[in-house]
Amino acid sequence: MNDTLPSWHDTPTKRAILDFVAAVTDEAGPQYVPATERIAVFDNDGTLWCEKPMYIQLDFILRQMATRAASEPELRTQQPWKAAWEQDYHWFSEAITNHYRGDDSALRVVLGGLLALSEGRVVEAVEASAKAFVENERHPTLGLAYRDCVYQPMLELLRYLDRHSFSNYIVSGGGRDFMRGFSEDLYAVPRERVIGSTVAYRYVEDEHGGAIVQRADLDVINDGPDKAVQIWSVLGRRPILAAGNSNGDLAMLTFAGGPSLPALRLLVVHDDGEREFEYSAGAEKALGMTLSQGWTAVSMQRDWQQIFPG
Amino acid sequence: MNDTLPSWHDTPTKRAILDFVAAVTDEAGPQYVPATERIAVFDNDGTLWCEKPMYIQLDFILRQMATRAASEPELRTQQPWKAAWEQDYHWFSEAITNHYRGDDSALRVVLGGLLALSEGRVVEAVEASAKAFVENERHPTLGLAYRDCVYQPMLELLRYLDRHSFSNYIVSGGGRDFMRGFSEDLYAVPRERVIGSTVAYRYVEDEHGGAIVQRADLDVINDGPDKAVQIWSVLGRRPILAAGNSNGDLAMLTFAGGPSLPALRLLVVHDDGEREFEYSAGAEKALGMTLSQGWTAVSMQRDWQQIFPG
Repeated sequence: MNDTLPSWHDTPTKRAILDFVAAVTDEAGPQYVPATERIAVFDNDGTLWCEKPMYIQLDFILRQMATRAASEPELRTQQPWKAAWEQDYHWFSEAITNHYRGDDSALRVVLGGLLALSEGRVVEAVEASAKAFVENERHPTLGLAYRDCVYQPMLELLRYLDRHSFSNYIVSGGGRDFMRGFSEDLYAVPRERVIGSTVAYRYVEDEHGGAIVQRADLDVINDGPDKAVQIWSVLGRRPILAAGNSNGDLAMLTFAGGPSLPALRLLVVHDDGEREFEYSAGAEKALGMTLSQGWTAVSMQRDWQQIFPG
Repeated sequence: MNDTLPSWHDTPTKRAILDFVAAVTDEAGPQYVPATERIAVFDNDGTLWCEKPMYIQLDFILRQMATRAASEPELRTQQPWKAAWEQDYHWFSEAITNHYRGDDSALRVVLGGLLALSEGRVVEAVEASAKAFVENERHPTLGLAYRDCVYQPMLELLRYLDRHSFSNYIVSGGGRDFMRGFSEDLYAVPRERVIGSTVAYRYVEDEHGGAIVQRADLDVINDGPDKAVQIWSVLGRRPILAAGNSNGDLAMLTFAGGPSLPALRLLVVHDDGEREFEYSAGAEKALGMTLSQGWTAVSMQRDWQQIFPG
């Protein structure tokens, strides 16, 4: 058991993963699933990489907002530009906590700023800046570059599934264009397997085949039941393995398997305040379902020997 | 040359296809494209299968409308139910001709009926009825089952590209859920590589993992510039081979290749009134661009030895 998933302790969680993969790849067994249907979906923030003290993409956005406020001083008196300019992270963190509590008013203000930033940006430029950001910028408290804020045990799980002919997809509330900037480098997940939130696009004619340009209109907020909807839109298949960490992943976890396929549902539990962050806000229902439905909780403290790479 | 693409005559068109595939798969050559980027996109109606005297999916829809009108007599006085009930195909064919001329008023009436049919339908049921329809129903004039209205030379092209590690996608104005019902059987294109028009979905909770259900709201009309937008949304890549037959494919054809990749653009020309149908309405701009840009015209009359399988 030690060669496979080396950063996972030999616990029932690891056993559940190994047993599931063994069962669905056993051609003679009752739970066999052909390779084309071995779809695994992973939330990103808090599931594949760290999401505290704030979403990494939020830092990316805040820096862009601050840059904009630097050149347009009149923005500095209105939110969210004001908070970005003053580096008032507490204001943004409250916006997210309120979102988890069901109050989206502040998040909508953040969204308005984000949409204003998006208008007219060519998708390749967005990806390039996301890639540079993740490669070069650092996490505020962990002493790590953002590119190293990924969870080593989850990287091993992705690779393990890939070796067993699973197709791994990222299904995240994060921005699709943002994640496409680094999904291949960080996770070996190709860009066509990234499902995320997105603004609308327009096609702009030019001299070399036209360009895809972001618009200041929301297209998809890939959270909650919309994760199941987006999985079906893109794939037309149900996943047989789903991993998440918050209430926003509940529908996706529930959707896995369905009436006819086996399923493994993993909920990453942030219970390691020493090595990462300890929190359950926004995950209460998901934790309840994991207990009541017999899903598989992944305790960062008990199941993971190592959290970050290196 | 005769073993490859056997239903294609040995013409410059076939030579252009073979040369292109040879160039992009030659690792030592200047036009080499790695397998992950070998994306080929195909329009469906009029490109992979016959679209006259009316879209095959329209026949599918008309039958559903007639069934509905049979059980709800009050519908028989209003369009599009009236035309469906009376089998007034001319009315529908005019709606499409007007659409090509830029007048969408009648098409919008058809759409209203389509949306009413969609409301509340589980996606798997839509796919199953599409599959049964294509397998069992027959083309009104060609003397063929609909499943045999596919173009044999294009089937060979799909297979040839697949053997050279291309990823083939269908990018059609037709309904995504409709096409997913038969894309694997007819074209060996897996369901996750079907990009089409679609109504919106809702996720409905149930006892076995929830269901994806169609809503009576339009989500995507996959035509014109939106084909380029949808290709990027789903794939995040530009195609290097694009095949279409009408003005609605212009943006997709233009989008292929882009600033840095080689591209082959195929326009299927319906010039064989003996074996299929002869028409150019709705393809005028695409034909003009093919001439002026040096794209590759595929003449059904001159380039295809055989049109339908069997």
